[in-house]
Amino acid sequence: MDEARGARRTGILFDLDGTLIDSVYQHVLAWREALEDVGIDVPVWKIHRKIGMSGGLFARALLREVGAPISPDVAQRLQTRHHEAFERYRGAVRPLPGAVDLLERLTAYRTPWAVATSGRRATAGPNLALLGLPEGVPIITREAVARAKPDPDLFLAAADALGLTIEDCVVVGDSVWDLLAARRARALSIGLLSGGYGTDELERAGAFRVYEDPADLLRHLDEVGIRELE
Amino acid sequence: MDEARGARRTGILFDLDGTLIDSVYQHVLAWREALEDVGIDVPVWKIHRKIGMSGGLFARALLREVGAPISPDVAQRLQTRHHEAFERYRGAVRPLPGAVDLLERLTAYRTPWAVATSGRRATAGPNLALLGLPEGVPIITREAVARAKPDPDLFLAAADALGLTIEDCVVVGDSVWDLLAARRARALSIGLLSGGYGTDELERAGAFRVYEDPADLLRHLDEVGIRELE
Repeated sequence: MDEARGARRTGILFDLDGTLIDSVYQHVLAWREALEDVGIDVPVWKIHRKIGMSGGLFARALLREVGAPISPDVAQRLQTRHHEAFERYRGAVRPLPGAVDLLERLTAYRTPWAVATSGRRATAGPNLALLGLPEGVPIITREAVARAKPDPDLFLAAADALGLTIEDCVVVGDSVWDLLAARRARALSIGLLSGGYGTDELERAGAFRVYEDPADLLRHLDEVGIRELE
Repeated sequence: MDEARGARRTGILFDLDGTLIDSVYQHVLAWREALEDVGIDVPVWKIHRKIGMSGGLFARALLREVGAPISPDVAQRLQTRHHEAFERYRGAVRPLPGAVDLLERLTAYRTPWAVATSGRRATAGPNLALLGLPEGVPIITREAVARAKPDPDLFLAAADALGLTIEDCVVVGDSVWDLLAARRARALSIGLLSGGYGTDELERAGAFRVYEDPADLLRHLDEVGIRELE
């Protein structure tokens, strides 16, 4: 098979928090504070397990746990409080091992890639800055779509921004919600352990392959069919 | 079978952080800060996966990841920095759902129970205070034994303090290290998801049964053979 110049390219659609940036645990504790602030008591591990969902679904999923109603006012306060709390944790946030190298390698390979996150641009922006992204990389944040993960809209928009069909893209994410969104979009997906989920959880959610973190994915790019375009 | 008065009792040996107290994620971020402070860069999820080990093994396990040597001085600074950082996070720490009720029920049932934690008394003390423990409950902390989890010493000492053989005890813990220590001691073990590990990880480490948190265990005490002593 000739996969050289002019052949179909595989695009990579990255989640951000827990996939490229080591920020999941800080987000988890920021949500814990925000929830307690509006009188909702949810243990931390349950918040962890819902991270990566859209804010609206996230709030609804947590409320299912506690059985309380939530008004639009409270939903807005939750978002604001989470953003404020996360700002306090932000100083400890770092890129994940290999994240910058992986993105550079993909760029060098001329493999198209994009970022698609359920986060809002205000929160995601400084995290993206840590990665030193090159010009022209499509960044799809919460504001760009009607429904965030586990709906497939973010990944569909990211594929579109790369000029690719979703079937020609591989989603890389750390959460069950990334992988479910990928399946709904009919994209293959790679799970990373760096968000703190277990291998089993990621495989059951449909991961085609599971690696530790971006550095581990970089070492195994050949396993997922990513190679230099000749 | 007559299991009434005079029959052999089952004792329960509880881990503390992640099992009775919702403190794992705060410990994780406190370790992250302490490690960075001594120049060791480890992603947060890997710290999470080592939590619950003895401090010495924990440091060694993380250093295996980064390949750096560690001096006794640095090990001491790590402990101190972790303790200081955790003190800043402590305000957000709460008992896990059902923890207080579960302990009260066991006491009402006259089921002997104890706490066995890899943490030091200085760090564990205020967490124990959140539970409002009754007088006379054995609390085994790091200082009481030569080797902490995944060595079985803490659980063996706790069984001993209850006047029971370890075979008559059930260990309840949230981490793989609790469950491995229980197996090495030949105790049955119950895994709780409340520390943020997945069901699969806990089962593979030998959990006899897995529940969400203390509230869920309380609802299923009959499944593990705990009932009121007549």
